This record gives sequence, C-alpha cells and structure tokens, in this order.
Amino acid sequence: MMVELEGVGNAESANRPTLAPTLASACDAGIESRDFDFHESSQFVEYLNSLGPLSKSKTLLRWILLLSVGALTGCVGLCIDVMVDNFFWLRCVLTDSMVELNIFVQYLVYVGVCMALAAVAGFLVCFVEPLAAGSGIPEIKCYLNGVDLKNVCRLRTLIAKAVGVMFSVSAGLPCGKEGPMIHSGAVVGSTVATCANLSLLRSYRIELEVRDFVTSGAAAGVAAAFGAPVGGVLFAMEEGSSFWNPKIMLRTFVCASCAAFTISFLMAGLKDVHAWGLMGAHFSFGHFGFNTWRLWELPIFMLMGAMGGLGGAAFNASNTVLTRWRMRRIGSRGKRFAEVLLVTGVIASVNFAFPVLMDGCVPFADLSDEAKLFRQPGTQVINILFHEGEMREFYLFIFGSVYYVLACWTYGLRVPSGLFVPSLLVGASFGRIVGQWMHSSPLPPSSPGIYSLIGACACLSGMARITISLAVILIEATGDTAWSLPIIATVLTAKVVGDVFNYGLYDIHIHLKRIPLLDESAEPAFMHHTARDVMTREVTTLEPTMRVGTLLRHLGNNNHHAFPVLRSGKYVGTLKRSTVHQVLVSGREYGIFQPAVCRGAAVPFIEILRQYPSFPSFREVQEHLCDVHDHYVDLGPYINHGGYTVPDDAALVRVYMLFRGMGLRHLPVVSHEGQVSGMITRKDLILIEDAPDARCEQSAHDGAEGARWRGVAQSWPPLLAQSDDQVSHIA
Amino acid sequence: MMVELEGVGNAESANRPTLAPTLASACDAGIESRDFDFHESSQFVEYLNSLGPLSKSKTLLRWILLLSVGALTGCVGLCIDVMVDNFFWLRCVLTDSMVELNIFVQYLVYVGVCMALAAVAGFLVCFVEPLAAGSGIPEIKCYLNGVDLKNVCRLRTLIAKAVGVMFSVSAGLPCGKEGPMIHSGAVVGSTVATCANLSLLRSYRIELEVRDFVTSGAAAGVAAAFGAPVGGVLFAMEEGSSFWNPKIMLRTFVCASCAAFTISFLMAGLKDVHAWGLMGAHFSFGHFGFNTWRLWELPIFMLMGAMGGLGGAAFNASNTVLTRWRMRRIGSRGKRFAEVLLVTGVIASVNFAFPVLMDGCVPFADLSDEAKLFRQPGTQVINILFHEGEMREFYLFIFGSVYYVLACWTYGLRVPSGLFVPSLLVGASFGRIVGQWMHSSPLPPSSPGIYSLIGACACLSGMARITISLAVILIEATGDTAWSLPIIATVLTAKVVGDVFNYGLYDIHIHLKRIPLLDESAEPAFMHHTARDVMTREVTTLEPTMRVGTLLRHLGNNNHHAFPVLRSGKYVGTLKRSTVHQVLVSGREYGIFQPAVCRGAAVPFIEILRQYPSFPSFREVQEHLCDVHDHYVDLGPYINHGGYTVPDDAALVRVYMLFRGMGLRHLPVVSHEGQVSGMITRKDLILIEDAPDARCEQSAHDGAEGARWRGVAQSWPPLLAQSDDQVSHIA
Repeated sequence: MMVELEGVGNAESANRPTLAPTLASACDAGIESRDFDFHESSQFVEYLNSLGPLSKSKTLLRWILLLSVGALTGCVGLCIDVMVDNFFWLRCVLTDSMVELNIFVQYLVYVGVCMALAAVAGFLVCFVEPLAAGSGIPEIKCYLNGVDLKNVCRLRTLIAKAVGVMFSVSAGLPCGKEGPMIHSGAVVGSTVATCANLSLLRSYRIELEVRDFVTSGAAAGVAAAFGAPVGGVLFAMEEGSSFWNPKIMLRTFVCASCAAFTISFLMAGLKDVHAWGLMGAHFSFGHFGFNTWRLWELPIFMLMGAMGGLGGAAFNASNTVLTRWRMRRIGSRGKRFAEVLLVTGVIASVNFAFPVLMDGCVPFADLSDEAKLFRQPGTQVINILFHEGEMREFYLFIFGSVYYVLACWTYGLRVPSGLFVPSLLVGASFGRIVGQWMHSSPLPPSSPGIYSLIGACACLSGMARITISLAVILIEATGDTAWSLPIIATVLTAKVVGDVFNYGLYDIHIHLKRIPLLDESAEPAFMHHTARDVMTREVTTLEPTMRVGTLLRHLGNNNHHAFPVLRSGKYVGTLKRSTVHQVLVSGREYGIFQPAVCRGAAVPFIEILRQYPSFPSFREVQEHLCDVHDHYVDLGPYINHGGYTVPDDAALVRVYMLFRGMGLRHLPVVSHEGQVSGMITRKDLILIEDAPDARCEQSAHDGAEGARWRGVAQSWPPLLAQSDDQVSHIA
Repeated sequence: MMVELEGVGNAESANRPTLAPTLASACDAGIESRDFDFHESSQFVEYLNSLGPLSKSKTLLRWILLLSVGALTGCVGLCIDVMVDNFFWLRCVLTDSMVELNIFVQYLVYVGVCMALAAVAGFLVCFVEPLAAGSGIPEIKCYLNGVDLKNVCRLRTLIAKAVGVMFSVSAGLPCGKEGPMIHSGAVVGSTVATCANLSLLRSYRIELEVRDFVTSGAAAGVAAAFGAPVGGVLFAMEEGSSFWNPKIMLRTFVCASCAAFTISFLMAGLKDVHAWGLMGAHFSFGHFGFNTWRLWELPIFMLMGAMGGLGGAAFNASNTVLTRWRMRRIGSRGKRFAEVLLVTGVIASVNFAFPVLMDGCVPFADLSDEAKLFRQPGTQVINILFHEGEMREFYLFIFGSVYYVLACWTYGLRVPSGLFVPSLLVGASFGRIVGQWMHSSPLPPSSPGIYSLIGACACLSGMARITISLAVILIEATGDTAWSLPIIATVLTAKVVGDVFNYGLYDIHIHLKRIPLLDESAEPAFMHHTARDVMTREVTTLEPTMRVGTLLRHLGNNNHHAFPVLRSGKYVGTLKRSTVHQVLVSGREYGIFQPAVCRGAAVPFIEILRQYPSFPSFREVQEHLCDVHDHYVDLGPYINHGGYTVPDDAALVRVYMLFRGMGLRHLPVVSHEGQVSGMITRKDLILIEDAPDARCEQSAHDGAEGARWRGVAQSWPPLLAQSDDQVSHIA
C-alpha cells in the first residue's frame, strides 16, 4: 500500500488517512510491553558520560521522594479510613432515626443510602476510569512484570480508585480497601517519580526508576492498609515485582515504613487528642494478649488451612465462571453501572434483613453482637471476631456463608473492591466457630480468637494463594510473633490444597483478561522448543544510513516497535520506533537530513526524551518530512548495538529467562552467520488457553512446519505437579 | 611445549608430568566460578525429554527433603545451645569450687578451662578445616553468588564449624553462634541436596537445585539461631542470595519455619518437662510486655543509630587493619593456633579480672548483675540488658567498651565466631546507659530495655550494614511488632552513616580475601567500557569434529574451562572442559572414536554426570586415549549451541547484568560477523583495589590500547554517592 510513497514527494499525503488509523488502532487495542533494558546507542552512552555520577544532593532527593511517596500513601489510606468511618456513622444515624417509623421506610432508607454510595463508586469506575475496578493488584502485578497497561498508573486512576473505594466500602459491599490501597500507593509512586524525573532528577533510566517507585508505592499501600511495613515489602516481592535486588528492597522498605509511620501517627492523634505522638499502640486487627499454643493444635490449624484451600478453590472457580459471564454479557457502561446498583441493592437488603430477623427492628446500638456483624465495616468485624466474647455459632455460620456468596458475587463488579477483608471475614467467622467448639471442649482452654485468626489466614491464602507476605501481614496487624508458626503452617496448607484445583484469584483475573504476564518460570514445554518455533518471521529491517523516503515506507508498512539494523546483510543492532520517530521529527533543526550520505550530525539524546513516555505519531513524522524524501539520514548514533540476541536454535527456556530476567520487549533472533531470522516479543512466549481454533487456523496459514507457537493449547487449570516440574528447575 | 604432541602417538607421555601439575595447580590455587546456566546441547535436551516432567512423588520428596533440612538445622542449633549451656555450667562449678582457695589458683582454673575449650575450637579450624573459621556468612554469600569456594559446603566443614562454635562460645570469647549456624544450615542443605539428587531425585539441574537448598539451609540457620523464620528468609535474600524468585522464597520459607518449629518445640520440652508441646512462649531475646513509645523519642533513636553507624565503621576499619596484619604475619597453622590460645588467655583474664575488681572473689551466684555480664554467655547477657532492672552506668560503660575492643580483636581469629551476639551486646550496653538516663530524666518514663534494644540494632547494623532482615530478626526475637518503626529508623540511620566511611564487615572480609563477588549492581565505570576492554583474547577454540590428537593438544595447552566451537570459522556454541574430559574417558565403550569423520555415536548425558561434581583430570584423559590419537571424535552432541554471547562493543554493564542475572561462568564475545574475539569470565568483571603495580605491568604487557581491565584502580572505601550513582539505575 505504501510502496508508491518512495520518491513521490508530497503526493503520499493521500494515503495518510488510511494508514495512520490502522497503525494507531493496532497500538491502542493491543496490550504492549514495557522495555526495562537499556539501549546502548553511542549517543546514549555519550549522554551518560556527560551527566557524570548522580550527585549527593540528587541521591538525597531520591530518598526524600521515596519518603514522600510513603507519606502521601499513608495520607490516602487515612482519608479512606476516616471517610469510611464517617459514612458508616451517617448511615447508622439515618437508619436509626427511622426506627420509630415503619420498617419498610427504614429498609428503603438503608438500601437507598447504600445504593447512593455504591452509585458514586460505580460511576467513577464505569464512566470515569474503568481501570479503577477491582482490587488493582492484578494490574500492578502486570505493570511490574513489564506489561504496558495504559493508564494504570495515572492520576485519574488514583482519584477514581481512592474516592471510589471510600464509597464502595461505605456502601456495605463485601469488599475491602486493601487492594485499592496497594494500587493507590503504586500510582502515587509512579506520579511522584514521573514528575520528579523529568524536572528535578536528571534521570538515566526513566522507565526503570518509575518501576522501582511503583514497587515502593505498592509496598507503602500494604503498609498503610495494615500497618505492616515488612509485610508490604514482602507482598511487593511475592505478588508484585518481577525484578528484585537488595537495593530495591531497601528503597521499598524505607517507603513502606514511612507510610506505616504516617498512618500510625495521624490515626493515634485523630482518635484521641491526648494521644498525639503516642506510637505503637495501634494494631489493625487488635492485639492478642497471650502467646502460647499447644502442639496438638497444629493438625487442627492445618486442617483448617486445608478447608480454607478448598473453600478458596471453590470461590475462585465460581468467580471465574461469573467473570466469564460478565465479560460476555455485561459489556456496555450502562449495563455495568446497572449491575453495580442491582448487586448493591440485593446486598444491602440482605444486610438489612438478617439483623431484623435476628433481633427485630431496633437501633444499631441495641443489636446483638452477631447481628452487628452484618452492618459494620469489615475491619471492625474482623476485630470483633478476633477479640470479642462468645457468639452464637449458628448465626456465625449464617454470616460466614452469606458473606462468602456475596463476596464472590462482588469481586469483579465494576467498583473498586479489595479481596482481603471479605476473605479474612469469611475465614474468621468459620474459624471462630471451630474455636468456640474447642473452647467448650474438655481440652485445655484456648482462645476462640486465635482460631478465628487461623481461619482468616486459611481463607485468604486459599483464595489469593499468597503465603509468606500474608503471614507477615497478619503477624504485624495483630502485633505478636508468637503465632507465626501456626499462621505459616495454615497458609502453606491452604496454598498447597488450593493449588491442586486452580490458580489464585489474581492470576485467574490476569489470565481472563488475556494479559501476557511472564510467570517466574517458563512452561515445561519451553524446553523442547527453540527460538525458531515462536519467532515472528516478518521482520522489517533498516540500514544504518537510509534515504528518508525508504525509511518512511518501512515505518509505515507495519506497526513494529523495534527494527533490527543490518549493515551489508549482517545484524549490527536495533532501533526503536519511538527513537526513530522522534529523531525524524526533531531532525531538521540539527541538520541530519542531507542530500548525500553524510555522518556527524545527530539529534541529542535529551531531545529524544522530550515527549517521554509518548512519542510523535507516524502521521506527525510524515508531515515533518514532506520535502526531504530524497535526502539521506544517518541512524548510526541511535542504534542499540549491544542488545541481547539469541541464535535460531536457542532453547525457548533461555529466551524466556532473558525476557523475564532482563525485562526485554524485543529480542532479535540472529543466526550464527549474522543474519536476522526473526524477532520475538512477549506475546510469543504466552501459551494461549483453550485455543484449538487458533491453532488450526495458524497451522493452515503457516503450514505444518511453521505452526505458530501461540496455537499450542495449554491445559487449564494445571495440576500442581505440572507447575513444579522440570522447567522450573531450569528457569 | 605441546606442539609436538600432534601425530606422535604414545610418545607424548613424556610430557605429561610437566603438564598435568601445571593444570592441576592452576585449578586448585585459583578460585573458580560456578555455572548456574544450563548447557543446551542436543544431547542434554534429549535427556530432558526422556525424563519427562517431575512426578508428583518426586515433588513431594523435594518438600520432605526441605523439611528435613529445616529439622536437621534446628537440631544442630539445639545441640549448640545445650552444649554451650552445659559448658558454662561446668566452668561455673569448677571456678566456684576454687573460691575458697587462693585467687591465683581460681584465676588459673578459669583461664585454663577457657583456653582448653578454645584450643578445641582452634584445633578444628587450624588443623581440620580452615574454612570453619569466622562467621561463615561471607563464604555462603560467595557460594550463592556463584563463586566456587572449594569445601565450603562439605560435611567436614559442618562438623568443624558446629563443634567448633560450641567450644569457642563456651570459652567465653566474644563471639556468637549465629553466623556459624547460618553456615551450618547451608552445609546441611547442600549435603541433603547432593545426596538426594544423585540417588532419589532424578535431577535436571543439579547445580541449581543444590544452590536453592543452600539458600534454604542458610535461612533455616537464622531461623534456628534466633527463632526467626521470616527474618531467616529475609536474611537469605538480603545478604545471601544473588538469585531469587517467589518459588525459591516459598521453599526457603518452608525450610526456615521447620527449623524454627523444631528448635522451639525441643527447647520448650528440654527446659521444662511439663512444657512438652507448649509452643510460642519462647523468645530468644525475651518479650517486652508493653508496646508504646512517643514521637519525640524517634530523633533519639535515630541519633543512637548514627552513633552505631560511627562505632560500626570504626570497628570495621580497625578490624580491616588487624585482618591485613594477620594475613601478612600469621600464616602458618601453628602460629594461628598459638594466636587463638593467646587471645583466649587475654580475654579470659579480662573476664576474670573485672568481676573480681568489682565485687571481690566470690562465687558466681553472688556476683552483682554488672559483674555477671563478663562471665555469662552472650545471649543471656542480651536478655539481662534488655529486661533486668537498673544497673550502674559506669560499669555498663566499661563492659561495653571492653567488649567492643575484644570483639574487634576476636573477629578474624581462627575459631568459628559470629559477629551478631558481640555486636548486639556492645550496642545493648551503651543503649542501656542512654535508656537509664532517659528513665531518670523528668520526661515521661520509658523502659531502659527498649533503649538497649535500639542500641543493639544500631551497633549491629553499623557493623554488618544489614537492614530489613536485622529489623525483622529482632522483632521476631523479642516477639512484638510494636517496636518495628523505631528499629527500622535506627538500622537505616546506622547503615547510612556507616556507609559514608566503609563497607559492611562481611563485604570487607570478602574483599580482603580477593574473592570475585559480583555485587548487585555494576561499578559506575562499567558503563563507559565495552566487552572488548575486558575480554581475554587468548581463546582456544575447538571444532565440532576433531582429530583426537589435536583435541588433546588444545586441551593440554591451557587450563580454560570452556571452549568456543567454530565451524568454518564461525561461532556455533561452547563446550565445557568437564564434558569433554568425561566424554573422552567414557567414549571408547560407546564407539565414538572412529578412524574417519563419522556422526551418530555419542556418550549419553547420564554418563557425563557420573563423577559430578568432579570430572576426570587431563592426565586420566591422556591415559585413556593413548592409542586413538589418529582417530576422529564428533563433539557435536555436546555443544551448547544456545548459550549467551555478546558482541565486542556491548557495554560492560550489560555483560555484568548477564553474568549476575543468569549465573554465568563463561561468556564468549562474538563479533556481528560470527568470529570469536574473546572470552569473559567472572574475574574479568572485578575491579582490583590498590593495584597500580598490576596496572602498569599489564599496560606494559598488553600495550596501551589493550590495557587489561583488572588494572583499573578503584577508590576504596567509596563514598555513598558513588555507590548509588548512574549505573545503579541501569543494573
């Protein structure tokens, strides 16, 4: 289509309207990958040399920025906490004031308030920022893995998420603020880093720097949500980050500690004016005053873990079915918003009805402990289940069961909603039942609260399959390390049992959204295939010095983001589309377009960063270059001549390790003779689930020999043995 | 020398005696590197395919092995604890029985007992296994980084270390069992893994599997030493492991929890027969019953952190000077042993004299609290300083100062000795002084014990520069998360202040031993150099099919451990010396030596593993091949044809990232045209300290242009700003 471009001067403008949208839509629709590797063009190296080492003041500045990410995240957490408390108080007052009136009026007021609150949350998600839905943990995991989900880390998402979660939690939906807090922290980190990098800090690797700030912010989110700085760091490691070293760990730790400090300091002061400056007395889930347990309790704890694993697996399976149905049937914004209102209405009715059935129509303060469970915010309920006296087991059972169903229905609804609190709640109520049985048995007395804690661990680990960070979070949130061994045994059992049936809920949602997440180890099948089997063979190559018209034709012919560069047919390096576009747009003033081949002039590196993270579109490039199609441009200074390559017959496991370990976006496949045979991108490394159709199509298209990799069907869910087999040894 | 080998049949045997020792001594003397990458020869891939995925029972077996590593490490820890307690009791009884006699006799008995105990520890280190000296943490760090320190992880080292540390701690030397426990755990892990891999588990990547077991074992060691499973995992991450992912984290966590469980269970039962099965009540450093602090205390904590950083830096600087002196002057085994006896004699005299000066010549039980500090085992003293009542500040000051000097003198002595306990002790005694001042001030009362805890954190972090794992270890060892924020603030301040002056003590000792440890990020200078600048140009290349005589000549000419393979001058892959030797020795029975070039016959992969981890020497190879020098051998099936390569002009940062990230041992430098220009090994990536001489020599040798990299002098100690600059963004 663009072939006639060459040599026709301005005449190609007629073709623009058709080409540009094609390119743009392909970029917008597909999920792109981030590039955490560095591009060692001679020009970049020169730029680095000109910068010299980071001065002390800049290093200090970075630490200050990290501390401010922590402090800001703490403040966001505090706002959410305070607002949720206030809305709860408001709802109580409004409902209680209707007690004297007809129960039906009271019901309408209760449900109306809940639906109004949920409507705000739903509106923010459905009409302002769809990415604010859910817990945000899958999104952050993908971001840190190197998947470029647009808008995940921008300010609008933060506002929609943080404000939305205040309303969704206040609406009495079975969801928590914890997941959204993690997402919020990550956005705070990203925002601070992006702003600071472009102005205050002269950054050397913006993409990497932002990534590390996002990691730190996510940890700060956990720290603020649970008062658990160490848990935050571990969570960022276990669930979030794909790239890790002790330096990142230290930064994350500082940031998370600052967040925990901020919220602990402000919370103490706000709760009691005389307590300003009194630290250390606050635990999110209350402090257990005693710390001994007996060996024979361990099997019981592990049994509870196994039950949690089963319950979690069933939860995940049901939620998968529900989410698939939602993806098929609830597509439009209006439908999504209506679903939010409908679900909230039902849940509010349930929350209203049960206490009335149990205790009759009385003000909130007069409700029994069990009835209050239905009406209070989740964190308070967890505290009650952990620490309060005897409750009626039957009511606890009903509460747990109802909440389990409602939580499953809610997760995936278009409101900001965390999985932690509902999951802990369900587990805590069932655990408490066990604890009360044990307490009334002739065995030595033990506290029902501890069983409640163990149940909570089991249930959350069964759903999310988090282990070490969950254990540490709960240890920090209850303030006592004496329970660490029972907690550890429980979460591990829950994970092992759950993993037999399916993956964790976050991974399931990532999978359902077909995001190309690279897991920590390659699929077993990767050992038996080579780079040749998965690479894209249609590669557009460039040359170090090109005629502008030819270059434009190559750029316009495809939507690739990187191009191998050949000199006399031999591979010498790669060029990024973003760099080439920016060079072409800025080039005129640096005199890089010459009528004959000539070297020397180059666009400085800082100019290439000008529009970071975006870059000029192809249309802009074309407009800038109408009159120089016959000139030549030297691309030499911008070529990344040191990038990784693999030979055709490299095992796919090695390719995977390079992608995962080095954070690559493109990997050229270069034969031992120096010829470029193909290019591998992240998507080539993903085995597509239940896609026999795709397989047949691809086979038919490419011929049997060239059958594309993505067509290989993967069994889903995989069994434990499969996920832990030979390749995991290698990768 | 070996040129005449070719074509002379058996005549070359005359040359063997000269060649073989050269090769052997070069291998023995130098520190070699481990190879954690996999060698994807066609034969290895076939072998993997024949194995299929790891069965469920084998996966289960691996978990059982991990649990047994934990349990065994716990038992080792328990033995050390029990023996130290018993020896202490014995020393008390012996000394007390002399109270009635002349004080000089009592002194002789005390010092005699101490020296006898120390003599056992010294003997084990000086005459049985030199690697059992010191804490072992630097050695494990190097092992996990990929440095092949011979014997670090064998059973004899474990015995020397574990038994030795019982005696060195019992001898009253200012050292702890914690570092040696970590080393012991690592050896347990390695031993279990090596045994099991070779028989029970069909292992796919033995080297990797062993490495992960060593990591888990090290974490189990921390867990057993402090009762801190989470701290153990974090320690393994922060200080130990260079390779990390959530799967390793989970395994490490399970193993560490098992160790903590084992020791906690057995300890409870052994201390009190009625407490068998009662868990959770034991904390290594005792439990603080209260948990509030005030905001204005934070600056004081941080100031204490800063003092800890200064004190730690001074400690490290003095110990560096002392260690250098030791390396120059105390070379022979006898001298080393004598030093152990001398130092123990002096320290025992000090420990005997101070209590006598303070309280006179009375039995141990009648000594004052302050005097007891000099005589009790370290862990008990820490408990006293944290939890007991008022003490006289002057005596505390003397104790802290004396212990500081003695600990500095002891670290590096040829006995197994940990840094943790002496360091915590010094910090705790100074911290307690601050705490008592604060307690007697008109400010709201706070516990001196907390200040003692903070002082301990500050001092250890100032010496070892550990942050997050130290914080978590101390939180777990005192059982209360309320102090996490003050602890975190303190350790971070101590690290920041200390890093201004020098590195942590473990890193200093690694550096002094000139071990090529690859830090988590490359040196700043690496950005401005390319692979060409550091590579070894003298590369011996092989061909896929070779005459046996030619191959032998190539193998005999050098001591390289890997050879690039060229086909028609183009690089096609690499061959490991170990593989080639084993193939040549085992080849005859598989018929791989043929009079003419022929393909098809190959030694199966399992045969190549036969002598793992060692392999036949060159002399053995020569002996096996006397009569086939004119035959041909096809090396094709053993070539690793997918390994990483870099082009000549790849930035050194990239090379470093590959080495560090992928655990490489050899990296061929291959031009874009497919020619091999050189080879890079781990040692080429180390900047040598204070080596201007080496630089001049090398420059003179290679010419100005080819000046070898290792000659570049590095400023030492580096300032903080330098260690945190541009390249840290990149790597």
